[in-house]
Amino acid sequence: MLVFGVDPGLTRCGVGIVEAKTSRQLSFVHVDVVRSDPGQSQDLRLLTIFEGLSRQMDEFSPDVVSIERVFAQENRNTVLGTAQAAGLAMLAAAQRGIPVALHTPTEAKLAVTGNGQAEKIQVERMVARILRLDRLPKPADAADALAQAICHALRPAGALQGGEREQHLTQAQRQWAQAQHANKHRSPVQRDM
Amino acid sequence: MLVFGVDPGLTRCGVGIVEAKTSRQLSFVHVDVVRSDPGQSQDLRLLTIFEGLSRQMDEFSPDVVSIERVFAQENRNTVLGTAQAAGLAMLAAAQRGIPVALHTPTEAKLAVTGNGQAEKIQVERMVARILRLDRLPKPADAADALAQAICHALRPAGALQGGEREQHLTQAQRQWAQAQHANKHRSPVQRDM
Repeated sequence: MLVFGVDPGLTRCGVGIVEAKTSRQLSFVHVDVVRSDPGQSQDLRLLTIFEGLSRQMDEFSPDVVSIERVFAQENRNTVLGTAQAAGLAMLAAAQRGIPVALHTPTEAKLAVTGNGQAEKIQVERMVARILRLDRLPKPADAADALAQAICHALRPAGALQGGEREQHLTQAQRQWAQAQHANKHRSPVQRDM
Repeated sequence: MLVFGVDPGLTRCGVGIVEAKTSRQLSFVHVDVVRSDPGQSQDLRLLTIFEGLSRQMDEFSPDVVSIERVFAQENRNTVLGTAQAAGLAMLAAAQRGIPVALHTPTEAKLAVTGNGQAEKIQVERMVARILRLDRLPKPADAADALAQAICHALRPAGALQGGEREQHLTQAQRQWAQAQHANKHRSPVQRDM
């Protein structure tokens, strides 16, 4: 199962992709930060983020997209942009018929470090250890996206499985998602570091 | 100038389209509410809203999309969904190379009633009067989307004009927007009531 983790943000939107052969056998696939220019107008910034996320979903064809859950009580200056970036990630997944999961930052930290309040450096170190990386993930803020993907891969049995969500799609949405997929020419993907 | 007003919401997203021959000569074109099912998962609801907005932008090819500005201090239960719906409207506009304007609810009320704190019924009555409608706009909550469009049409001289935003598009984005437009088969549109 290929898990596409998203740490949503309008200026920097982290993407971390992890392959889970079993829930205890995880491997690193890809990490990136999609950036938008704070000097541009908000609509063009959202377009940039959406295109970056869409392109990577097409490239890697994940089985599930796991997005950090945003809360209204977060930093007022950035929360709306963060919520919008999360919304774009959901939209890009829904357009492709890929199921979406949401996990809180606390759940992600707990999953990778055993401590829901862990410091950033602890998260980075444990992400590197779990994925058997030689060094800490770069760029540093992409660690949260990898942690989000790991968190979903390690979720307790009985939680949402990829495919389960299919039943929520309307007939028209499913057909559209299938048509979208059929039109894609998948590029060859290098899935190891 | 055709102004596409949006009153963003995840459950009900209002669309109100107004034609401005001059800033004092406004006419009604279209009103609608795009709905999503609260029983569906958030990603599918966002997809429904995005498709509804996109379809109507394709049908009417507006010169500008005017969206109600969302504030972080609004109702915590709905503000994130509202911000995400506004983000989708911005994305749909940006994908088509249509400039986006944002006006606050206070600005919209002020523009149509002369009172930024006007009651809902006052807004509905003044929207009907300005657009010379025989009755109050239906559904009632679409009045805010029409007020948003009217507000933009009546904005003071010197404010953002349609076309001015072109310069903010990158070369690639402009080409893409043009290609998108070239691919569209515009359906005939009835632009009066």
